[in-house]
Amino acid sequence: MTWRRVAVVGAGAFGTALALVAARAGCAVILWGRDSQHMQRLAETRENATHLPGAHLPTSILATPDASRVGGADIVLMAVPAQATRAALRALSGHLRTGAPVVACAKGIERGTGKLQSSIIAELVPDAVSAVLSGPGFAEEIAAGLPTAVTIASVDMAVAERLCASLSTDAFRPYASDDLVGVELGGAIKNVLAIACGIVAGRGLGESARAALIARGLAEMMRLGVTLGARPETFMGLSGLGDLVLTATSRQSRNLAFGTAIARGESLRDLLADGAPLVEGALSAGIAAELAVRHGVDIPIVAAVAALVEGRVGVDEAIAGLVNRPLRRETD
Amino acid sequence: MTWRRVAVVGAGAFGTALALVAARAGCAVILWGRDSQHMQRLAETRENATHLPGAHLPTSILATPDASRVGGADIVLMAVPAQATRAALRALSGHLRTGAPVVACAKGIERGTGKLQSSIIAELVPDAVSAVLSGPGFAEEIAAGLPTAVTIASVDMAVAERLCASLSTDAFRPYASDDLVGVELGGAIKNVLAIACGIVAGRGLGESARAALIARGLAEMMRLGVTLGARPETFMGLSGLGDLVLTATSRQSRNLAFGTAIARGESLRDLLADGAPLVEGALSAGIAAELAVRHGVDIPIVAAVAALVEGRVGVDEAIAGLVNRPLRRETD
Repeated sequence: MTWRRVAVVGAGAFGTALALVAARAGCAVILWGRDSQHMQRLAETRENATHLPGAHLPTSILATPDASRVGGADIVLMAVPAQATRAALRALSGHLRTGAPVVACAKGIERGTGKLQSSIIAELVPDAVSAVLSGPGFAEEIAAGLPTAVTIASVDMAVAERLCASLSTDAFRPYASDDLVGVELGGAIKNVLAIACGIVAGRGLGESARAALIARGLAEMMRLGVTLGARPETFMGLSGLGDLVLTATSRQSRNLAFGTAIARGESLRDLLADGAPLVEGALSAGIAAELAVRHGVDIPIVAAVAALVEGRVGVDEAIAGLVNRPLRRETD
Repeated sequence: MTWRRVAVVGAGAFGTALALVAARAGCAVILWGRDSQHMQRLAETRENATHLPGAHLPTSILATPDASRVGGADIVLMAVPAQATRAALRALSGHLRTGAPVVACAKGIERGTGKLQSSIIAELVPDAVSAVLSGPGFAEEIAAGLPTAVTIASVDMAVAERLCASLSTDAFRPYASDDLVGVELGGAIKNVLAIACGIVAGRGLGESARAALIARGLAEMMRLGVTLGARPETFMGLSGLGDLVLTATSRQSRNLAFGTAIARGESLRDLLADGAPLVEGALSAGIAAELAVRHGVDIPIVAAVAALVEGRVGVDEAIAGLVNRPLRRETD
């Protein structure tokens, strides 16, 4: 049995791409956003010209700013930015169908609370089965129907599998997992590592250094994750390694661009100012480094990014932390 | 205690870069090649203008075609192409110091015999401790002194650690491992996966598909490796994941370029003809696929590349095997 009525919360690029996926999988889709003008334009033009130009929205997608329409859905995909999830769930309060799975599709740790997306969902919608969709996927590529494989995780494996079956098409392949912590943590840490890769790229340190950083960074992600109860194999999968490779090697990544800008001497204060594009990895670095200290885990690359972002070290000192590790056995 | 006298066999780009590394680490270096004219030019101009232009060879590097000089070295680094290792060792027969470690620095499975490099060394120099140097490193970047981290593996961990200490500089960081099988197998399989990534790139299937392929490909590498006695963590390290990421995302990779060319419709026969540049991954694919069948391991991406290279399927059918996996749990 698959779910046939899907609500997507957030009508940016990724939300619109997910609405297209659900429609192609045969679902009736409510695409909800707060901005009534934006939603009206989507409904009239059948296109999200602002965020995802070129993709035609079929009639099975209803674009609306009416929160009550979300209540008609069997499952809810949360596709607003990670820092806006709490506000969006508040706006939908009282409108969600009781017990409907709520799937976090954004990645990131909440500023102030340090909470992962699934914890915010659990806090605000306690009766929902919370789940996470994560993996290497660009909205533009998903919308264009290019092959994309992602992980959908829930503590209830049957829910994860049913979500996968509901959203699967020939091009969009979700794989089920019950390792919610591992999938979410991978999504948060990979942004930190992308900043590190950006720093190495910005200083012209070469492709070999970046590849080594990805390998050693994945090991850090895994060490921290396993300590927090995740399974090691999750980090080797789509939501861990897959997403890390995409974020750390693609010019489309905001975290990578941020690292590159720092390494080229741009001002940290300007890059992190209010109003500048939010860099999830800069936010997650400190929280992850703190978690690692609390649990006695050694994650030097993440710690170097955190120290840099917090202004405790300069770029050169951070780079020394990234590439000049002492000689040890690799698996230490 | 470190070794101070190093011989590098093979004066191509990578051999010359390794000679520079050893010299920078304070060693006296014999750089040996068969072509006496080439070696004489190196000795006279202090530059390998043919393969690694721009890098100055210090006087601590002796470039020579005289095989007897190799016998003065404490350790021997084999840096000829994988298919030429046997011939080079024959040329050096009787000249190697008894018991000196011989380190395979090329990656690939020998055509005809299906042997990994360390097995060829063990066969031809039975009294040597064989070792392998592998990881993400381009000759040009190493020569330029950019940070590079690699793995050096030997069944004798003390030898691996001493090799690391002997060749280590601030920029060149070797890590010791005793998982010889895992390191060598990773080096061979990553070339096959780079072909798969090239096919996906050549057909314009997007960065998400490539990232997913890298994650799922690494899982295949690990499944086969563990069956053959390697340790899983080796594949997550520099010689596995690190080298895979470099090879599968860099335009400098011959295997990637080969996959791209096939996907764009170039003739397989022309690409694999005698005289064309040797594509290690095309050679390794069939051997790896065969090993997997024999051991009952499922490695569909490698199998798809093997079938394509052997002309059993066309590009479209191979791509279906690469990206359209059936819905399953990710860790199956």
